[in-house]
Amino acid sequence: MSRPDDPIGFFDSGVGGLTILREAIKALPNEEIVYLGDTARLPYGNKSPSTIIRYTLENVSFLMERKIKLLIVACFTASSYALETLEERLSIPVIGVIQSGCDELIRTTQSGRVAVLGTSSTIRSGIIQSLIQTQAPNAAVFPIACPLFVPFIEEGLVDHPALKLIAKHYLDCLKTQEVDAALLACTHYPLIRTAIQEELGPGVKLVESAACCARKAKEWLFAKGLLNPGNGKPKHRFFASDDPEKFRRLTNQFFGAEITEIGVLPVVKNKNL
Amino acid sequence: MSRPDDPIGFFDSGVGGLTILREAIKALPNEEIVYLGDTARLPYGNKSPSTIIRYTLENVSFLMERKIKLLIVACFTASSYALETLEERLSIPVIGVIQSGCDELIRTTQSGRVAVLGTSSTIRSGIIQSLIQTQAPNAAVFPIACPLFVPFIEEGLVDHPALKLIAKHYLDCLKTQEVDAALLACTHYPLIRTAIQEELGPGVKLVESAACCARKAKEWLFAKGLLNPGNGKPKHRFFASDDPEKFRRLTNQFFGAEITEIGVLPVVKNKNL
Repeated sequence: MSRPDDPIGFFDSGVGGLTILREAIKALPNEEIVYLGDTARLPYGNKSPSTIIRYTLENVSFLMERKIKLLIVACFTASSYALETLEERLSIPVIGVIQSGCDELIRTTQSGRVAVLGTSSTIRSGIIQSLIQTQAPNAAVFPIACPLFVPFIEEGLVDHPALKLIAKHYLDCLKTQEVDAALLACTHYPLIRTAIQEELGPGVKLVESAACCARKAKEWLFAKGLLNPGNGKPKHRFFASDDPEKFRRLTNQFFGAEITEIGVLPVVKNKNL
Repeated sequence: MSRPDDPIGFFDSGVGGLTILREAIKALPNEEIVYLGDTARLPYGNKSPSTIIRYTLENVSFLMERKIKLLIVACFTASSYALETLEERLSIPVIGVIQSGCDELIRTTQSGRVAVLGTSSTIRSGIIQSLIQTQAPNAAVFPIACPLFVPFIEEGLVDHPALKLIAKHYLDCLKTQEVDAALLACTHYPLIRTAIQEELGPGVKLVESAACCARKAKEWLFAKGLLNPGNGKPKHRFFASDDPEKFRRLTNQFFGAEITEIGVLPVVKNKNL
């Protein structure tokens, strides 16, 4: 049985999920957190679905050992391929960034004409497109792969004139499509929100998964009486499967604060699932 | 014992090594070729040295089974970390892109002031810098990591104005250093030679590993009487460890011709080494 002072688990292939965590902490300031980034095996995007599911189960097994009461899959690739398997096997609720993002996008659009911006693998999988169309069969969905955005962000070039040219290169084709909302379907993209908004213009609302993930988590915890009433500063623990230095270097950018203590797990094993 | 009609083996983590192969075929038009790209496990650059050595041995084992008479390690990361091990264990000669590139750079410079352009991992390893300084202790070496070049090239944006801005961003700092030669220390970079040359100006000679690898191979084969005298069209065989479609898609760009037949190896095992 879960208890209010059990932590919430976050899983991502790397540091991108910290943008999701950041929003969650605003909405849930009293919650203990355990965050795991599988930095030794990223990127997940170029791996096969069965490998992605296996890696996700191994990582979640580590989080389950820390008695999490709720799991947030803060990785677009893992939440594309592994969410059903997790829901079947876990006794705790699971919230995925993709599903939350789609809900928010559908809630936001007035015209039903929407864009989805993501990495090549997210767009190629077609999973977001079909999730939207299941929930809103009349929606017109315009998927756009933007593979250079992540390397620009990881290089810290979020204000560089070259990024503006690249945003134009990817997004110019949307101008004639009259979309009124666009989902940022990658945990990195909130960091270049300004460049994307400038290119798409004020008529297009940018939708992120983070706030919706946080809201879903809060609603569920409240309904089950599992919100942490708080006792000062809750613990936020971070783990990476490779080189904590690299993880630490990027935390300021993705989390808005430096994370100094990062545990390293040598090999994550799928023990409990 | 090797024979003149045995093939030359090429190993790379992906398609980049095709730029090396392309030059080699010009110099050695009668040679049979077996090329292996370990596309299932790329990129190598973010992996630990022991993993890189293990993967390289597994791949080379596959090539050895095809009775290659000479091995060209057409991958900067693998030739950084695994060349010594290969030289110890193999009965055939091994030519690495890094070692060839350094030789060519030292031969080219007049002033002894040289730049090395590479991926983050290549530059961070410091291996090229120390190889140059071992051979030319008075050389002044300016290493520049250019992590966005590979994603631009893989996106096919080799003439895009954004690439020019990024080239300026990385290379501007070289202008005051009076270098007269720069090594393109990544198999992808020859595809953006024009953008790099424009940014560095005509006073800087760009050095590639490919021609030097080909020359070394030819010299060795000639000395041992192992040049293939030729009997019409030699066979060029290609293997990838993942998705041949993705490999095929990039061959035009890297090889200058479409490669239609690509074998897939499920798992490469280290049998013979």
